Formats: sequence, structure tokens, C-alpha cells
Amino acid sequence: MAASAAASSAAGPTAAELYAQVATQGGLIRDMKAAGKNKDELAADVAKLKDLKAALKAAMEAEGGEDKWDVPKEALDNTLTRRMFVVPSFELYNGVAGLYDFGPPGTAFKDNLLAFWRRHFVYEEGMLQLECTTLTPEPVLKTSGHVDKFTDLMVKDSAGECFRADKLLEDAIDDLVKKDSEMTPDRREELRQIRAMADAFTPEELGGHLRALGVVSPSTGEAFAEDPFPFNLMFATSIGPAGDLRGFLRPETAQGMFMNFRRLLDYNGGRVPFAATQIGSAYRNEIAPRNGLLRVREFTMAEIEHFVHPERKEHPKFASVASDVMTLFPATNQTTDGKTVQMTIGDAVASKLVDNETLGYFLARTQRFLFASGIKPAGLRFRQHLRTEMAHYATDCWDAEILMASGWVECVGHADRSCYDLDVHARARKTSLEASERLPEPVTVTELSCIPNKGALGKRYKKAAKPLLSFLSELDGEGVAAIKAQADAGPVTVTVEGTEFELVEGDLTFKECTRKVTMRKFTPSVIEPSFGIGRVMQGVFEHTFYVRPDDEARGVFGFPAEVAPFKAAVMAVDSRIPDEFLHRARSALTAAGLSVIVDDSGVAIGRKYARADEVGVPFAVTIDGVTTTEGTVTVRERDSMRQIRVALSDLAATIGAMCRGEDTWESVEARAAGADAATSVASAVVGAVTGAVAAAAGAVSSAFAASPAAPAAAVSPKVFDRSHGLPTSITGTAKGAEAVVMEGGDRKIGRFARPAVSIL
Amino acid sequence: MAASAAASSAAGPTAAELYAQVATQGGLIRDMKAAGKNKDELAADVAKLKDLKAALKAAMEAEGGEDKWDVPKEALDNTLTRRMFVVPSFELYNGVAGLYDFGPPGTAFKDNLLAFWRRHFVYEEGMLQLECTTLTPEPVLKTSGHVDKFTDLMVKDSAGECFRADKLLEDAIDDLVKKDSEMTPDRREELRQIRAMADAFTPEELGGHLRALGVVSPSTGEAFAEDPFPFNLMFATSIGPAGDLRGFLRPETAQGMFMNFRRLLDYNGGRVPFAATQIGSAYRNEIAPRNGLLRVREFTMAEIEHFVHPERKEHPKFASVASDVMTLFPATNQTTDGKTVQMTIGDAVASKLVDNETLGYFLARTQRFLFASGIKPAGLRFRQHLRTEMAHYATDCWDAEILMASGWVECVGHADRSCYDLDVHARARKTSLEASERLPEPVTVTELSCIPNKGALGKRYKKAAKPLLSFLSELDGEGVAAIKAQADAGPVTVTVEGTEFELVEGDLTFKECTRKVTMRKFTPSVIEPSFGIGRVMQGVFEHTFYVRPDDEARGVFGFPAEVAPFKAAVMAVDSRIPDEFLHRARSALTAAGLSVIVDDSGVAIGRKYARADEVGVPFAVTIDGVTTTEGTVTVRERDSMRQIRVALSDLAATIGAMCRGEDTWESVEARAAGADAATSVASAVVGAVTGAVAAAAGAVSSAFAASPAAPAAAVSPKVFDRSHGLPTSITGTAKGAEAVVMEGGDRKIGRFARPAVSIL
Repeated sequence: MAASAAASSAAGPTAAELYAQVATQGGLIRDMKAAGKNKDELAADVAKLKDLKAALKAAMEAEGGEDKWDVPKEALDNTLTRRMFVVPSFELYNGVAGLYDFGPPGTAFKDNLLAFWRRHFVYEEGMLQLECTTLTPEPVLKTSGHVDKFTDLMVKDSAGECFRADKLLEDAIDDLVKKDSEMTPDRREELRQIRAMADAFTPEELGGHLRALGVVSPSTGEAFAEDPFPFNLMFATSIGPAGDLRGFLRPETAQGMFMNFRRLLDYNGGRVPFAATQIGSAYRNEIAPRNGLLRVREFTMAEIEHFVHPERKEHPKFASVASDVMTLFPATNQTTDGKTVQMTIGDAVASKLVDNETLGYFLARTQRFLFASGIKPAGLRFRQHLRTEMAHYATDCWDAEILMASGWVECVGHADRSCYDLDVHARARKTSLEASERLPEPVTVTELSCIPNKGALGKRYKKAAKPLLSFLSELDGEGVAAIKAQADAGPVTVTVEGTEFELVEGDLTFKECTRKVTMRKFTPSVIEPSFGIGRVMQGVFEHTFYVRPDDEARGVFGFPAEVAPFKAAVMAVDSRIPDEFLHRARSALTAAGLSVIVDDSGVAIGRKYARADEVGVPFAVTIDGVTTTEGTVTVRERDSMRQIRVALSDLAATIGAMCRGEDTWESVEARAAGADAATSVASAVVGAVTGAVAAAAGAVSSAFAASPAAPAAAVSPKVFDRSHGLPTSITGTAKGAEAVVMEGGDRKIGRFARPAVSIL
Repeated sequence: MAASAAASSAAGPTAAELYAQVATQGGLIRDMKAAGKNKDELAADVAKLKDLKAALKAAMEAEGGEDKWDVPKEALDNTLTRRMFVVPSFELYNGVAGLYDFGPPGTAFKDNLLAFWRRHFVYEEGMLQLECTTLTPEPVLKTSGHVDKFTDLMVKDSAGECFRADKLLEDAIDDLVKKDSEMTPDRREELRQIRAMADAFTPEELGGHLRALGVVSPSTGEAFAEDPFPFNLMFATSIGPAGDLRGFLRPETAQGMFMNFRRLLDYNGGRVPFAATQIGSAYRNEIAPRNGLLRVREFTMAEIEHFVHPERKEHPKFASVASDVMTLFPATNQTTDGKTVQMTIGDAVASKLVDNETLGYFLARTQRFLFASGIKPAGLRFRQHLRTEMAHYATDCWDAEILMASGWVECVGHADRSCYDLDVHARARKTSLEASERLPEPVTVTELSCIPNKGALGKRYKKAAKPLLSFLSELDGEGVAAIKAQADAGPVTVTVEGTEFELVEGDLTFKECTRKVTMRKFTPSVIEPSFGIGRVMQGVFEHTFYVRPDDEARGVFGFPAEVAPFKAAVMAVDSRIPDEFLHRARSALTAAGLSVIVDDSGVAIGRKYARADEVGVPFAVTIDGVTTTEGTVTVRERDSMRQIRVALSDLAATIGAMCRGEDTWESVEARAAGADAATSVASAVVGAVTGAVAAAAGAVSSAFAASPAAPAAAVSPKVFDRSHGLPTSITGTAKGAEAVVMEGGDRKIGRFARPAVSIL
């Protein structure tokens, strides 16, 4: 054991070699578990696996640096706070850890992202959207398992300060090993094993280790008087005035959808499959919040519960995404060569790597959503859960992971949870949460029924016969069979409501009945895509932020126009321009439903552009002297910094068409250049833009929706940005299902195959 | 006293007479309060006032029935639940009082209402939208006053059941008076006075009355062992693991905006006025929730905090709303003739009835929002708070009240709260929450400064002189003046950090300095429109719901298309139609951003229409045999039930234009009729609709934004629906600021003066 650890730290095996070792070790542990070994027997090997994984991580970092997104993090964080995308809550009262507010650009970005999410998922699939309360009574979360299992182990010092016990132990061991250079190899190995088990100990075991190592509170310097204890991460409260109805703030939005299953099924005409969905707040009382938006105490989730027949998980629209190429990280690769694979989701499902079409369909739809929102392909992968990570009832799970400066972050879960959730609630409430299906053809069922001799029993037991008769009439097939088995052997004794009855020959007649069955009941499986919206936002922040090559101080968010917080910034070239023109430009854009910021400050125009860039405004509209005489303004595209002149009267239509993906900057620019040569800039641009709007309004097809007539003019598929290392080439686009394409490295404005979208 | 009560119940004065009596009595009480009378001295007269008000209410009900909206309430409630607009939360676990979930149509309606709210308020005014946490640490709500004052008085019985103490007392008195027919008039009058004071007693007084009347728990039948106590209506929780950071779920969203005031001011370039706004959840732990969405424990608010200079409350866009006619219920009228008045908001502000332009601007903008959302003019009034209702710091308050089946319901508050909120937080945190303004011209200020003789003091006090010198250097004008006054009279004694210093002649020199001051600080006032979104939703439900005259069982929600949960329903005329056509129609509409429901069930077409009507779908699209051969579908308008044929390829553009207010059903119908006469239905409709879209896309003006070029073709002002009793005629529309007009009685689809709106 010690030798292998030494080898990996000295000679330095490659990441690939380490992957192989991780795989072997993982297999060994699985075999041991299968052979019934207990935790103590497994401890050393589990520790070795953890160690190998850590070495692998280090090797990967050294070799490729691929597990950190390359972004100027300090400039990014500074811009996020200074421009009020995200700020600590309650700063005036010194703040509260893990609570953040969104300022104007953060809120607008989030609103637009969620509006896009609704169009992409809810409208496109006809999902049943719900809005349930965050306040949740305890019994619901007792059944779901959150009351008992949604915990971390914690220790409290004499001053009442709390710590995550496993983290304290890890830190203490790291400290010891670092300080004590004369530590024996055996002792070092022993500690390494303990550290690797830190999050797996029972409270008593963990307490024992803390005491043995003399771990003290970092604050008081005193040892902990008591063992660690499980701390439930839900926020508790009391509903109603009596104080006896304990409740929690929901830790996920999913439960509200299970609660409403019956009504939803009815709303859907009793038919399965259907999807319920909910966007809303969830809460987690983190012991130690950190990493900004990545681990917070109050956050927004967008969850889908797609209810489907457990044996029929095909998806009618799967063909529309089958050719989407995805970066998959299968469970087997995680324990062998550690490599992701590029393949179409069609192949992944056909080869059974992804369990079923419905799960595969959602994986592909999620990828399209993320790309269109600004996530770069090189920083997105779908990681399959290892069998050991999944709950026993889960069929298959894939996390969409976004590469950030802090590494790969799970942002969207996709789990096939089988029928677990409906089952536990049905059992807890002694009710049924099932759907019915018509059988392909009626089935004839033969059942044994048991007919009591009412006269004889009534005479013998008088009134007391009533419960007995009712008991006999309610027997199911198995119950009747059991009684008949007894009756065949002699008298039958049954106990009903505490009274014993003896039934002799003549009391019961058994009869076989046949009936036609046309319907069958089943508990639907649920496939659950679950988005952590704050994490996706952080991903988009990191993937779209850059600084101008010529000026480090000038940060830019290259948001796709569709989700950009503001579509346009209106500004005057200098202070001589009358305010009236700013107001006219602003009103025109606002009336067309475009969100606008106005910079009417006295700073230089370059500074105004920089300010707009910092909040990711795709189009800057400048009023200058020519505006006052000829009625045209300049429009500057954020990423290329190129400009054109547009008539004020065409401004909203021009920018609106680009924001809706009905037109591109390149073609608008080309038309404007053409018009420049003609007599009137204004009329030429009008004609071109209006034409585009009319054409788009007539187009009824969507590349996302995979209808056959995608508007060819607006689409020009490109190869993904390669600036982030992955040699990905997305070429396998099915007819009518163009892959979502984004540009990144060259900082052109993002555009993607989308139809005329004009949302109310 | 008894005589007057008897008179009002016997002879039956008219509502107008009662208003006059209410007015006189109100004036009397104001005078008594002004004269310093205490609560006991006021009790009888306050009771009389309450009694008069109750009689007035009864008289109004008897005379006009105007204080109840006339809606088939049972059919409405049944439809709301059955079609899953609103359902009780956690029904599977027997529910929790005061918690409701929104099902698919409820959620979609709410989403659309809020999206419209954002366009109407946030985008139009360039407001700074925030999203703050609902978890709020206690100190913030201590300062705001919620910890101490957000309470109701409650009693608890021996079984732990809780009751609102004032309601118990009222019920008990009603019971007593009803049962005891031999009660003396004096006793009856005494009880009446106690009842009228029920919500004004101290806990001890209320407890005394409960005991004196022998009030027992309705559940246990036992007397209450303890006095009532104030029950705080906030949900408490504990933030973080230590359990020592008490927090609450916010009772309003406003505090988050005050918390962020400094950053917002900075975001806005240091300039005032600006508006912050937030849409989000708020919580109130009602002792006795009731009336469905009107009194719940978790609800959505949309609040605006418009920060403005306390002496300059003009609004630059006031002229754009000045001609809007409003139904106002001024405070003076509430205490005199009880009549609302119809006047333009311009006149209301000019006459100082409404305190200032900014408040008036928001009142008018709220009215436009509510009308466009489906609220009928006859069921909307703006009620001014009585001086006694307002907090001492408030300047003027007006509630938008919507008439519902349960009476007038406060749905939107509009309060000028002066600088109260910023002031209390600034004081609590010993900091400044001020803005600065440049003075019209620089002011020269003369200040006395005090120059210490550092040599002398240093020599005398050595190192101890340091705090003294620092103390002297930090003195403000008043401090210096105070010391000079002492110095003029002899030696000065100052105590700094516990050390006493004696300063004699020669230690200090006083000098007058003059300096130019160009800036002045001020704490902004805040004007706060605050929307209870659930209440507005309930208002729209009640104002738009009707049953088909020919069929009581057929309920319809006549939602304006803009806020309708779904814009279209797609259905087949019978089961012979291939599903493919349903999918094509659905995809076309979805791709254009229109939310759609598909009814592919096997029921008759009439039943499908009825189902779509029940969730307020404005346009039903039917696929029939002609669709499969000629590619056209029928489109049926919900309220008129009239139909036209439209080419499948034009479907999305046609319906989209009507939903955005760019086109009307009437003109679409007229064009279709014209096209029918020509050779091709399809091409004629294409031309007409595309033309309308192009024209609308070019239009940059908004009737709401009051720009000069409103698209005349789309607007045809009408007189308000008169079916609900108020003889209102809105005619005073300014150029470019058409009043919002709605139709109601004739059940045509609502339409109103709005420009091309095409939202991303």
C-alpha cells in the first residue's frame, strides 16, 4: 500500500496510467462489496481509490490544465460586483454568508435566461408548469427522505461556533503531515487512510478521530466536548399560529410536482407520458457556504418531472436531436482511461450507453439550451453517475458539468428515478398514485371468488357476522386462494376485528369467474432534468467574459443577444446632443419590447462604450450631430466593435430582428454598406430589414423543433470555437435539426440556428 | 347613543344620509383627538363611528349592490380548481391552510401578467430591477419595525389551538345579543361599544373582556387560562448551523431595495430620481387564512421604490398620463358624501387632491396596467387613505381597490413614505444613506475652526496629547462654537477617552474660515407602488369570467390575449384527422413564441371548444378535412365564437399579430371575408397579415408611452362597459395618450391602444 502511494508520488505515472489504476481499484472494491465485505474491511482499499483519484487529478492538472476554465477571474469577480450583477445580501448589516442579491443586470440576465428556458422546454414540449409553495409541511419531507438524510456532520465548540467535522479532520491531518517531517511512513499511511474516510465515518468514529488527533476549535483553541452530530440542511420554521405544524423551506422544487401528480394526470386527460415543470426558489442551510453563486443558501432551480410508462421510454421527437454530437463521460471511462467521448446522442442511446430515448432527448435539449445561453462546447461535458453514486432505485443519471475556474461543476442533473418518488408518497399516504393504460387487446382473467353462505353464518353469528361477510367480500385473488387452501384441509379460522370465526364446510362456496380486462394500472417512472440556475449563470459569466486584448481594464460580457440583460445602450456622442433624441431612441426600442439602458452621463463616448460592454450590451446606439440633421444613428456591435448607420425610424426593427435571431449583424452590416453607396441609407435599410421580418414572420419552422423547413438564410452552421482545447467538430446535423452553433474565440456575436421568435 | 342606533336600524336612512353622519362623527373624533382626549374618553364615539360605517355598508348593499362584483362565484371557483388554475397545496397530505399552488393555466397566466408588468413598468421607466433573498436576518426587520409591530392578538386554549382574540370577542358578542332577546338596551349598547373596540384593546383589556363574557375555546369549551398575546406574523427560522442567527422570511420585498440603496445610487451614477423594483415572494403567517388567494401565507409581490428629491416630486412624463380619467375616492368624500369622483389625474394633481406628480403618474400607470390585464373600469377605484390610517411619516397614500364578489379589495398600494425607510436604517447602522445634489449656484459658507497650540499641549501632556489633538481636529462647527463660548469665559475642560484636559489661554486659537460649497446632501423620499399579484390575479379572474348565455355549465375566462395563459388551442374536428397536422400547427405557433395547448382527445369538437374557453384561450385552431387537402385551418375567436379560415402557413403570424395588439380580430375577419371572394384564401391573408406586421414593426410609438405617432388603425376608443352599474364615460383622451378601452358586456375580445410589442 505504502509502496504504491510512494510510486505514484515519486516516479509520476501519467494520467492515463492512473486512470487504469483507478479502474482496477474500483473494480476490486465492487467485487469486495459484492462478496459482502463490511466497511472496516473495505476501508484500506477505499482509501487507496481516493488516493489514486487525487493523484489522477493532480496529473491531469499538470498535463493539460483542462480542469480549470481559463478566465481572468479577478477582473470577472470585480466586474460582477462593481456592476451589480451579484452582490452580497444585507451588506448594510454586514451581510450573511451564502446569501446574494442580483442587481439590475443580474436580474435582467436571469429573467431572460428563464424566459428562454420556458420557451425552449415548457412551450416546446407542452409541459405542465406549476408554481408550488416553498413552505412545506414536515410529513412530506419525512416521506421523501429529506428529514432523515439531508444532513452533514457537524461539531460545535464551547463558544457555539460550528464546523463541518469531516473538513476539520482533513485539515488537521494535512497540517500534521506537513509539519511533522519526521513522521514514520506507517503513521503517514495510517493518517492518509483516515483522511480518505473522513466523510464516511459515523458521528462516533469521527469524534474519536478528532479527539485522538487533538483537533481543537480553530476559534477557541479548545477540544470539542461532544461528538459530531448530523446537521439537517433544511431551514425549519413553524406554520400557523399554534407552533405544532413544523415545516421547512423546500430543498428542491420536485416534491410539489409529486404532490400534484393526480391532478396533473387528470389535467392531461389521464394520459402518460407528460411532463410537469417548476421554476422556483429552493433552500439549503449550508454549514460553510462558499464559491459565490456555486454554494449558496437560497437559489433558483428549474426542474422537470417527465412521467413515462416504465417499459416505454421511447420519445416521439428523439429523431430531431439524434444527430447532436455530445461530449460524454461514461461511468466506465471514469474508471478506465478517464477520457470523454464525442458521439451523437443517437449512437449513445442505440449502444445503450444512455439508457433510453427520453433521457437522451433531454440530454441533447439541455446541451442546446446551454450552448444558446453562452456556454462554450469545450467547457461542457455530460458525466454519467457511477453505479455506486446512484440511489438504488435510479436507472441512469447524467450530470451536465460546466468547466469553470474552480473546475468541473455539476449544473444540471438528469436522472431516471424510476417510480421511486410516487411510490414512497403512495405508500406513506396508503393511497395509489398510478396511471391506467388500455391494454393492446382485452385480456380474459380467471379469478377465484368465495361466496359465503349468508344464511348459515347470520344464524350462527347474528350481528357479529357483518364484519366477517365484509371481510370475505373484500378478499383479493390471493386471499381467496389462501382460504381455499385451508378449507380444502378442514375448518378455516379467520380473525376479523379481533373476533375469531370458525368456518366449516357449507359456510363457503368457491367459484371460478372469468372477466374481460381492458385497462391496466401502472406507476409511471419519472425522468428528472434539474437545473441549478445560479450555477448555469455563473457558467455563462465565466464562458462569455473576456478583456479587450488592447486593454486589460476593459472587461466585456459576450452574452448571446437573446439572453443579454439589456439589448441596447443608448448614448450621446457628447453633451451637445439634446436629450430629446436619447428619449426618442429609447422609446422606440422600449416600445418594441427591447430592454434598454440609457447613458446620458457626461463622460467620453469611449467610456460609455466600455460601460455598456461591461454589462454585455450587444448593440450600442449613439446619437450624434448627424442624428439631429438626418435622423440616423450609429449602431456598434459589441464584440467586433464595428459600426453602421441606421435610420432612427428603423432602429427597433433592426436591433429586434438581430436579437430574435431573424437577422445577423453581418448581413445587416452588408446591407448598410450597400445602402451607403445608394442615395439614401435610411430607405435601403428599411427595405432590407422589413423584408427579413416579413420572411421570418412567415416561417413556421424551428431548428430546435426539428420541423422540415428551417429558414436557410438565417442559418450558417460553424465549427465550434477551438480556443479551449477540445478538438471538437460538430458536423453531424440531421435534416431539419441543425446543431446549435456558437462562436467564441473570435468574439463575434453569438448566433445560432433559430427561427423567428417573437414572444408575448 | 342607543336612540341613534335604533333610528338607523328602524327608519333606515339612505346611504347618502349615513355618509353625512359618518362624516360628522369622524370630524368629532378628530377634534376630540386634537383636544387630547384619551382612548377611554374616545371609546363611545369611536364605537358609534364604526356602527355608522356598518350601517352605511348595509345601506349601500341594499341600495345598489355596488360593493360586490356580480360574478357566478360558484362556477368560477369550480373552474379555477377543476382546471387547475389554483389548487390547495399538499392535498395528498390533507393540505395546509393558506397555501395554494398554481397549476398550468394559473402559472402561465401569472408568468404572462408579470412579463407584462415588467414591460409596462420596468422597461418603460428604466427601473433598476433587483432580486433579493427572502431569508432576512432579524436586525434588518427589527429596524424596519416588523419584529415589534407586525402582529395580531391571539389566544391559545388548553389543547394548544389558537384563535384571533378580537374575532373571538366579536363572535361571542354577536352570539350573546342574538340569543338573549330579553337583554336590556343598556347592556346591548355596552356590548356594542365593546365589540366596536375589539381590535383596539391591549392584551390585558381584551383578556378581561373575554373572561367577563365567559368566552370559551370553540374547540375545548374551556375558558382561556391566559391573556391574549401579540403573535408576530413573520415566519421565523435560523440561518447557518450555529442557531444563533435568527432570521425571518421577508414580509415584503421592499427592505431588500433599501438594503441596496447605496449600490443602486452608485449604479445610477449618483443621480436621483431613480426607481428600484423587485418581483418576488413574501410571507405572512396568518392566524386564520381565508378567501382563497386574498389572504394567504405565501404570495408574490411586485414592488417599486421610486427614490426622489423630497422637494422635487415633479415627473417628466406626467403629461403623458395627465388626461387619464380615474375613479378617485378621496379621504374627504369617505367621511362626507361617500361618493367617488371621476376626474383626470392631471386635475387631481393640479388641485392637490393627489399630493404630487410622481404619485399621480404611478396611479395612472397602475390603472393602465390593470385595465390592460382585464380589470373592468366599473370595478376599479383609487381610495385615498384617511389621515388616521397613514403612518405619521407618510405624505399621501392611495390604494387601487378592485371590486370582487367579496367586496372592494385593496390590490395595489401607492404610498409616498417620505424618507422614513432610509432614515431608520441609516440611524440604526450609524451611517448615511444620502444622495448629493449640485447646488444651483455655489454657496459661500463661513465656519469657525479651532487651531490647537500643538507645541504647548505636546509639552504639557506628552503622548497623552494625541487623542486631545485628534478630538479637536474632528470638531464640527457647533462643537467649535461651544468650546469658544467656554474659552471666552475662562479655562476649558474637555474629557477625551476618559482623560480630563484643561485648556487655558494660548492653547487654542479660533479662526473664521470661508469656503465655497457646491454640493448638498439629502435623504431621498420614496414613493412606493406595491402590487399584491395574487389579489390582482383574483381580480382578473372575477372580472373576466362569464358563462355562455345559452349554457350555464359553460364557463369562459375572457382574458385579454396579452395575458391569456395560452394563446391558442389546437384541435382536430374529429378522430379521422392524422396527428401530423396537429403537430404542424402546434410547432408553427410554438416556434413563433406563442404558448399553445393541444387537445387531441376523442371528444366532440364542441366539448374541445368548451375546454379551451374554460382556460381562456383566445383563439381555437381546428384541423379538418379541408386542412388535409388545401392546407387551411379554422380559427375561432373565443368571445364572439366566430370563425375564419387561415392558411396553416400564415397561422402563427395571424394569431401572433392579434396577441401583440398589432392587429384585431375584426380586421383579420374582414380581410378573410374579402379573400374568400377572391381566388385564393391563403395568399390574400398572407399579404394582409404580413403587411400589418411590417407596419407595426416600423411603428416606434406607444400609446402607453405617449409618443406622438400612435398607430391610428389599431385604435378605436370605446365607452366602457356599463353592465356593472357605474355610469362612467371616459372621453378625455389626450393626443397620443388614448385611454385604455376594454369591452366587457358584449364579450368581444378585449383590445386596447397598444403599439407593436415584440418581446424577447
